[in-house]
Order: sequence, then C-alpha cells, then structure tokens
Amino acid sequence: MTTLQILQEAQTARRALLRTGSKQKDAALHAIADRLWADRERILAANALDMDAARGHISEVMLDRLALTEERIAAMADGVRQVAALPDPVGRTLRTVERPNGMVIRRVSVPMGVVAIIYESRPNVTSDAAALALKSGNVCVLRGGKEAFRSANAIVESLREGLVQAGLPREAVSLVQDTTRQSANELMRAVGLVDLLIPRGGAGLIRSCVENALVPCIQTGTGICHVYVDKDADLEMALDIVENAKTSRPSVCNAEEVCLVHRDITERFLPLLRKRLVEDRAAGGLQPVELRLDKRAAAVISGVPAGEADFDTEFLDYVLAVGVVDSPEAAAEHIASHSTGHSDCIVTGCRETAESFIALVDSAAVYWNVSTRFTDGGEFGLGCEMGISTQKLHARGPMGLEELCSYKYVITGNGQTR
Amino acid sequence: MTTLQILQEAQTARRALLRTGSKQKDAALHAIADRLWADRERILAANALDMDAARGHISEVMLDRLALTEERIAAMADGVRQVAALPDPVGRTLRTVERPNGMVIRRVSVPMGVVAIIYESRPNVTSDAAALALKSGNVCVLRGGKEAFRSANAIVESLREGLVQAGLPREAVSLVQDTTRQSANELMRAVGLVDLLIPRGGAGLIRSCVENALVPCIQTGTGICHVYVDKDADLEMALDIVENAKTSRPSVCNAEEVCLVHRDITERFLPLLRKRLVEDRAAGGLQPVELRLDKRAAAVISGVPAGEADFDTEFLDYVLAVGVVDSPEAAAEHIASHSTGHSDCIVTGCRETAESFIALVDSAAVYWNVSTRFTDGGEFGLGCEMGISTQKLHARGPMGLEELCSYKYVITGNGQTR
Repeated sequence: MTTLQILQEAQTARRALLRTGSKQKDAALHAIADRLWADRERILAANALDMDAARGHISEVMLDRLALTEERIAAMADGVRQVAALPDPVGRTLRTVERPNGMVIRRVSVPMGVVAIIYESRPNVTSDAAALALKSGNVCVLRGGKEAFRSANAIVESLREGLVQAGLPREAVSLVQDTTRQSANELMRAVGLVDLLIPRGGAGLIRSCVENALVPCIQTGTGICHVYVDKDADLEMALDIVENAKTSRPSVCNAEEVCLVHRDITERFLPLLRKRLVEDRAAGGLQPVELRLDKRAAAVISGVPAGEADFDTEFLDYVLAVGVVDSPEAAAEHIASHSTGHSDCIVTGCRETAESFIALVDSAAVYWNVSTRFTDGGEFGLGCEMGISTQKLHARGPMGLEELCSYKYVITGNGQTR
Repeated sequence: MTTLQILQEAQTARRALLRTGSKQKDAALHAIADRLWADRERILAANALDMDAARGHISEVMLDRLALTEERIAAMADGVRQVAALPDPVGRTLRTVERPNGMVIRRVSVPMGVVAIIYESRPNVTSDAAALALKSGNVCVLRGGKEAFRSANAIVESLREGLVQAGLPREAVSLVQDTTRQSANELMRAVGLVDLLIPRGGAGLIRSCVENALVPCIQTGTGICHVYVDKDADLEMALDIVENAKTSRPSVCNAEEVCLVHRDITERFLPLLRKRLVEDRAAGGLQPVELRLDKRAAAVISGVPAGEADFDTEFLDYVLAVGVVDSPEAAAEHIASHSTGHSDCIVTGCRETAESFIALVDSAAVYWNVSTRFTDGGEFGLGCEMGISTQKLHARGPMGLEELCSYKYVITGNGQTR
C-alpha cells in the first residue's frame, strides 16, 4: 500500500475516532497490551531477522537500541497499560463564557486528527507512540527506520488486532511500508492529510523536517543544555548538579553540555570541578569527563583548550565545555546565543539573581538549583511523553497527552444573530 | 535598512522586552495612543500621498480600506488604549506541580519573541497588530502592502516615539522597508529570527506563507462556512440565522457561503428561504441573494444551477450555495469535505442531533442555533484579535493576547538530582 493510500485510509479512521469514547479507547489499549504479550514470539522472530540484517552495518549502540527481548516486550505492553490509566485528554471543557446576548461559548479539547511520527531504530517507539495517539483520539501514521522495519511491522500487526478486538478500525494505526527518504517527504508534504508531524530522532532528521515540512510540525529534541554556577552558589550543590546533569546519562538530550562559572568563584570552584569530574571519577573506576576549557578557565585548571565549536556542540558524551562569565546577565546572554532552548540551569543561593536569570533565559525548561536531567514527561508527572519540543508554537518541553490535542469552540444559543 | 538588519535589531529589543513589566508596557501603549492622535496631520498627509498614488490602480473597495480620516485615527488610538486595559497575558502561572522529590514545576506564560505580520492595505492593522504584540511582550516586525507604505511608515514613527517616551527600545516595532515579494520571503525563511509569522490577507498570501514558510506560521482566515438546517429546526430561527450569516457582512470570513437542508423539510423550508433571501429583500430595497442550487434543491425552488465549484468557493458576496442532504451525518460528511474549518452551524431543536453534529464537525467554531458571524475576538470576549486561525496547531479560532504567548517550565528546588 502506498503512503498516500495509507493517509487516505487514515482520514476515514479519523472520523471514526471522533465518535469513540474513553471506555472504548481504554478497552482497545488493554487489548493491544494483551496482544503484544501474546504475540511475543512472532515479534521476537521478526526482530531476529532485523538484527541479523543489521549486524555489521550499524554500531553496537544502535544494535542494542534495535534489540527486543521478552522483557522489553513486557515493558512495551506495560507502557500501553499505563497510558490507558491516564485521564482522557479529549472532550474537556477548557473554558466557558456566557456572553451578554445569552450565547454560551465553550472551548473544548479535541484530537489533532492524524499524527504522523517519523522515528528511527527503537521498535518500542512503535507501541509507545501509537498508544499516546490513540488515547488522545488521534490516528497514528508511523514511519520507522529501515533497520527496524520487520519488528515495527510485527508490532503494528498486534496493535491492529487489539484495535479490531475493541471494535475500532484497524486503520487507526498504520506503518508506512516504504522506508526510503521518499515516504518521509510524502508525509512532510501531505497538506490536508497530516494534522501534525513529529520527528523523533537525530538533529539531521529534525532539520530536514523543519526545512521541508509543509504540514504542521513539532521540532523536538536536540539539547545544548547549560548549568551556570553563580558566585552565590552552594558549591557542593553545584558539583552535585553538574556531575548529575553531565554524567548520569550523557547520551540524552537533557544532559548538560556546557558549564558556565561566575568569574568571582573560579579559583575556588574550578579545582573542585576538576577533582569531582575527572580525578574522583577516575579513582572510583568511573569514566572521567573531558573538560574543554575557555581561556579564562584554562588559566585556573588544566584541561583541553576549547575549540570554536565546543560551546555549540551536543556532545552526548563524557565531554563538558567550561567557560567563565562576568555576571548572571552575561551567562544569560551566552545562553541566548548558544542554547538550543531545551533546558538550562542556574545554581545560586540568591533569589533575586535566580529570578532575573529565569526571566532572561528563554528555554523550554529553566532550572534553579535542580539538575537539567528532569526534563522528561515522566519526571514532570505527565505519565508519558511523545518527545520534547524545543519550539515555542503549540507545545514546549515534554509533550504529553494534552499537547497531542487541539481545541475547538462550541457555541450554543437560541437563535442569536449579529 | 535591510529586512535582515531589522530582524537583528529585533533580537536585541526582544531581550529588553523580557525585562519589561505590565506597567511599563501599558505606559507605552498610552504614550502611543496619545502620539497617534497628536501626529494625525502628519499621518493624514502621508496617507494622502498613498491615496493619490493608488487612485486608478486599485478598486474603490480597496481605496476605502486604504483611506484614513481623523475619525479612523481616533479609532486606532482608541484601539490601542483598549489593548492597554486588557489583563497582561505574560507571566501567568498556568499550572504548578510539586513532585515527590520536592522540586516545584511551574508552567508560566511567556512572549513568543519576535512576531512578524504580513498584511495588505489597511493602515490601521499597523497600530492594532503592534499594540497586541507589545501587550504580549513580543517584538513586532510589520510588512505591509506597498499601497499603504507611506501611511504605515508614518504610523510606525508615532508608535516608536511612544515606545521611546516610555523608556522602551524603538526597535520593538519595525516596518520592513522593502514591499516587494522578496521581503515577504525573507521573513518566511528567517529561521531563528522570527518566532511566529502571521499572514493577514487573502487566500493567495496565506497559501504562499504555508507553502514557503520555514518559520512557525499561523494559517488565518479563509472561511467557507456552512449552516445546516436540520429536519427538527425551528424554521423561523433558521431563516433568521441564514439571512444574518449570509447578508449582515458578506465580505468577511465568518459569513455563510453554503446552506445545507435536510431532505425531509425541503418542501417547507426552501420556498421560505427563497422568499426571505430573494423576494423580501428585493421588496425591501435590500440586495437579494443569488441562490446556487444543487439538483435536489432546484427541484423545489428556482435559482441558478450550482456549478462544480460552488460548494468550494468563498464568495464573499451576496451568493449562497444551497444543497440538500439526507441526514445530519451526511451534512457533517459534506462539511468535512468542503469546509475550510472556520465556522459551521447546525440549526435544530434536537439536542442529540446537535451533540452528534458538534462531535463530528472539526472546525474552529461549531455553532448550535447561533449565526456563524460571531467568530470574532471582540464577540468572543477576548477584547481584540490578531486574526482567526484555521489550523489546529497552537491556536484555533480568534487569536487574542493569550494566543500570542508561549510558555516555559520553571523548576525550582534545593539541589535535586536524578
């Protein structure tokens, strides 16, 4: 089936979902979870074929992302059940106004319609994304990476059986059958057929979507996150936050890439920073962090001299750029020029400084004395997440179920005219 | 000054506005209102030059849109004062969550940043749009039509004097000096410099923005609005609503273009419709409506046979396409295929029918027994409006001050790590 045919079928399913209530959606999600587990052997067999084909062609890290196990399938099914347990985001009255002429205007949450998701090699995104879309009343058109195609196809088969079991159209979830660049382009340009496009993947994919999409698109992901250590910081707290933000999981978008330090505390703080991130970690058998120092930092401690690009790079590794700034305002100014608007942090004991920093830093998440690693749907209490938006239109930060909805105005009266 | 230079200056002004509180913004708006009135002779002189140059080149309707008078300038100043009186949309805490680890997450409204507005020949849009942008903490880059360039320039001069008087940077409002297609394209492609692009104008301009914009863009405007008269409608009410929606101001986007009638009432309703819209109006010295009838309607009353395109045309004139449908579901189906998603209405006395129609019709505003003409910021009680969004991402329907804002998450704690 061509991508266009899939999108046309999605339109019919979209209208069916408009009539579907919470109970039926949750029943479908439970049926899907049961089917995923019941079908685990079939899914694992498909995954084994993907793994065989990929071995030798992609890195070990990528292979690990691609691999499914019984445990991972159980986790997928569990994730779907957790989505079922969340409150229904659709049909909420967000605001009610009665106008002087007696008409009542309600703003009501509604599904976006058809949500297309372009993702890469993690098979579990298939069921995660489909569950979030279904719970929010959206039809979901998935376009995964070619390495994971057989796995994704096997998973979608289970999803569709669950849908049908609950009396919903199987076309509410589809997998694009073409994994070439062409199908991604078709989704980006399907004006009138795709209501929202969400790319989940590396910087290249996201850039391509932003540049080529004619349909509404959410820019997710890349994070050049900063921690600014102010002169009024509790230095122990600063070390804890910097180490956690940098090293607890360096490969994710909410990890710290740049540490900015107030000039008044460089002599005290930088040696402690070096000790904590380099020496203590090496002594404890942990991977030490490579520090890339601007000139002023390099005058105080030893490390690699920072190159031109080091303050604009998402390392996703045990590497940290370290720079010295003259003031909180200068830190905010640096962040305005170099941040991707994902997550940025100030460590300070001074409320005034913190409030001014928070006002000036225009990022999705601005932290005061908390690690940047908390920018995550689960950690924010949303229960789940479709990605982290770094744009300002529609949704910002972790996108949960509410962010997969739009709204409409419903106006009722008894013959009002103007 | 080139468009790029203007956008770079806008970035500096953007940061200044992040530090500007409600009082200062309102003071600037009042200073602007005063200046507009004080400068009326200079503005009228500039407008006279525009009018002289345009006369003979554009239609009378367009000339009227271009013309300024003392009265219209007073209305512009008044509009700015009304915006000052509205509540500040920035800095509101939209939600607060305390997490088990003690960190507090607040979702706070923030300005979008730099809002670019491409508009056509109405000079008053210059001050309206700038006032809404300023009140919502946004820098405003205006690109008007070439016919109105001298008028817009004169108005912007007053706006900037008002800004400076209140201690704000004059670059918070700019007018692009180039009125060729190139400057519109530059705004559409200024990734990182324009946070939101709003086209205000005809279908061609909006299509061009949707197709070419790389920056986030709101699709505004075009309305093919439907009124469906159900078999359970109060026919007098239906006639009032249809006549009001069609004839009270046919040139606007919330005017009705299509009337759908349930098959069971065609014999009773269609002759009344013809009498009300054609004969009574002609007898009363009002412009009669030209009815374009599908085959089933034409079997009952006389009128022009509807052509292929008549159910997909924004007439903006005293023309109404009339069709017969078999059921409320068929009406919703027709609307799904032909509506622009602006404003659609059902007239019925049956609550069940109304609720099902409301669920199925996926438009920005869905009316039950109320004229579509109310889709308007003022009528909705927003106090003002930057345009009517017909897209589902970010904002839908009339865009007021809140819709010109984004939000960010502010997370405070005492050293939380993950």
